[in-house]
Order: sequence, then C-alpha cells, then structure tokens
Amino acid sequence: MSDENTQILLTVGILGGTGKEGAGLAMRWALNGYRVIIGSRSEEKATTRATEMNEELGGDYITGMGNEDCAKESNLVVLSVPYGAHKPTLESVKEHCAGKVLVDLTVPLQPPEIMSVNLPEGNAAALEAQDILGDEVTVVAAFQNVSSVKLKKLDQPVDCDVLVCGDNADAKQEVIQLVKAAGMRGIDAGALKNAVAVEALTPVLLYINKAYKVKGAGIRITGVED
Amino acid sequence: MSDENTQILLTVGILGGTGKEGAGLAMRWALNGYRVIIGSRSEEKATTRATEMNEELGGDYITGMGNEDCAKESNLVVLSVPYGAHKPTLESVKEHCAGKVLVDLTVPLQPPEIMSVNLPEGNAAALEAQDILGDEVTVVAAFQNVSSVKLKKLDQPVDCDVLVCGDNADAKQEVIQLVKAAGMRGIDAGALKNAVAVEALTPVLLYINKAYKVKGAGIRITGVED
Repeated sequence: MSDENTQILLTVGILGGTGKEGAGLAMRWALNGYRVIIGSRSEEKATTRATEMNEELGGDYITGMGNEDCAKESNLVVLSVPYGAHKPTLESVKEHCAGKVLVDLTVPLQPPEIMSVNLPEGNAAALEAQDILGDEVTVVAAFQNVSSVKLKKLDQPVDCDVLVCGDNADAKQEVIQLVKAAGMRGIDAGALKNAVAVEALTPVLLYINKAYKVKGAGIRITGVED
Repeated sequence: MSDENTQILLTVGILGGTGKEGAGLAMRWALNGYRVIIGSRSEEKATTRATEMNEELGGDYITGMGNEDCAKESNLVVLSVPYGAHKPTLESVKEHCAGKVLVDLTVPLQPPEIMSVNLPEGNAAALEAQDILGDEVTVVAAFQNVSSVKLKKLDQPVDCDVLVCGDNADAKQEVIQLVKAAGMRGIDAGALKNAVAVEALTPVLLYINKAYKVKGAGIRITGVED
C-alpha cells in the first residue's frame, strides 16, 4: 500500500452507524474518499439504512453490516451508540478490534437527566472502553460535542472544534485527519483521561441549547491558529 | 438603594486577589464601577498589592485586607486560590459568607500533572465549596477557563466565554453581569454540578497551550448569539 493511497483504501466501520451522529459522519467520510461500513445490531437495518444513504449521496458509497462484521471488515472502528449499549457493543466486537484504533464517540448521558453532568463509574466512557477492550486496542475519544443536526447538512462546515483525546500520538493524528475529512477542526486535547472533560461538556451544551433556545451549540478553542 | 445604583455600590471581595487571576479580575471590575477588596492570608501582602494595583490604575480603586475581613466587608465573595488552599480558605471565611453569593474560580489541578484531568474527591471544587459552606451560601462556579495572561491586558477584551454554573438563577445572572464587566461573555451553563465539566476543561486547555505552543487557549460556545 503506497502512502498516497492510504486514505482511499482505509475502511472506516461505524458501529451504531444507523443513528443520527454516525450517519452524518458516515456520509461526510464517504464523500471524502473513505470506504465506509455502517454497523447495527440488526444487519437488515444496517443494509436498509446504507441503501437510503447511498440514494442520498447518489452513488454506491456505504455498506451495511451487523456490528461484528462491521468491526471485522474495517481498518478503523468508530463507536457511536447510546451509553446503555456501550459495554455490550464493545464486548461483542472486542475480538475484531485487536490491533486497530477504536474511536469512541459515546457520551455517558443518564436519561432523563441529560442536561447535567453525571459521571459514569469509570469517569469517562472512553476510559471504560479502553478497560473493556484491553491493551491490544488503541482507544481515541472524539466527536462527543458535535451536534448531529449540523452534521447532516453535508454541504456545510460544522461550527464546532473536535477535541481528540488519546494515549497514542499516531492514532490521535489519524483521527485528526478523520475530523478534517468530516469538515471540522480536530484539536489534540491530550491523554485519554482528558475525555472526562470532553464527554462532560456535552450535557452542558444540551443545557445551553435549551436555555438559549438554539439547536446544536458547540465549542471552539480560541488562541490556536488553524 | 435604587436599582440604578446597585452596581456602583456592590462591593466585590476577592479572596486570593493578590494572585494573577484575581488581580486581573479586580482591576477590570474596579474600572467598571465595582468597589473591590482583594484579600490574602497576609493583610500586609494584600495592602501592598492593592497599592501597586491602584498605581497601575491611576486612582484609589482597590482596598487590601486579610481574607476574613475581605469576606466580611463584601456583598459578593470571589474565591481565587490554588486548590491546596481551597478548603482552609473556605473554612476561615464561612461565617462571613452567610446570605451571600460566593463565586468559585478554583480549578482542582493536581501538580505536577496539571495537563490531564484528575477529579477531586467531590468531582468539582465548586461542589466541595457548597458542601463546606452549607445552604446559607449560594455558590456559583465561573471563570475557570480564563487565562490570567489575557486578563491582565486591561484594554483588551478576552477571547474566551465564561461558563457560569449554579443552582440559583438570580445568582447566576448576577455573575453573568460580573463576567460582562470584566470584558467577557457569560453563558448560563446549568446546575452547579456542571462545574465538573468546566473545571475539568482547564487542564485540557493547559495541554493545548503546550501542544500548540500558545499562551492562553480559551473556549467559545458556538451557535449562541450575543
């Protein structure tokens, strides 16, 4: 594989890719040269949703599979599920993630109290993911603050920076490229444990959405040039 | 007291006001019509520093006192101390804070590891403050993400929003006015427990400062009109 073809040949698998957040990223990445597989617990749901997305995109960009096959067939795995499905999904795909980067988008919201910070047992979903998957998988946390409302407007850049946390510098750079391919700016935000701050910021943004009657409040890091 | 004179007569006391963050806010508030007292464990240090600040401001704006007198003589108390001094300072002024709003600026950094999130026992310094002070004091958390480097440039607005967390809506609005008086935009960020996210963001910003070789990275909330 030559360097210049790396991006084109990279297959990104999105577990829970039939949801709003995952679907928005899937279509943005597909339009930017990545092979994309969307996964679901139901293979049928995934293939149906992939067909709909391909119709919207006007081409045969995205494939649907069950979550396990999605993880198996991908070079890089993205996890985009509600927090309640976080642990079981990770356990079901663990063996297929060995040697790969897993990008965790999960926000550990505890409905119905979704506008205030309620830390999960491990303080961050991403830290829990690393604990579940073990050392053979490199977990990177990203995209938790990005509004799905803005992601689905494919022709518009998203007015939100993406804080990228992880303990492996190369994996973080790879994810920062993925962020750029989805139309946003990725910022190296330090160690995986810093995902505690980034995940906790999402209920704050949901509160701001309600308090200011807006949709999709986001964040920008100031003082850092593009 | 007529409404229009409320701001002019409000005395803000800044515990730890001799430090960089507190001093920057003290001068900004003094220039915007607030009476300001800076407090320190050492009364002599506070009076000396107040004299220096008044010379810089060109007027007799700021008074220095020991922390206890500072809290006693103020209508609103601001806490700006290193985390190590958080609990003892609060305990020393508790009786003088009854019936008042206390604005907690504290970031629970754990040196030397100041660029990654290490949650304190109570998850947020502001929650610990409320616990120490009891129900007679209204704690509001704010200003944790603001760089002292930028605060001290008194003639320049600070390119950072201030997330204001608290369980009392009136107190939050009062603090949002203080934020404006210091040249920034205050955003109502929900319940006091949301300070977990805001405090945890500061070590992330310190990491970004180092990783991107900048000083004073800050945050903006996008999607909310001024």
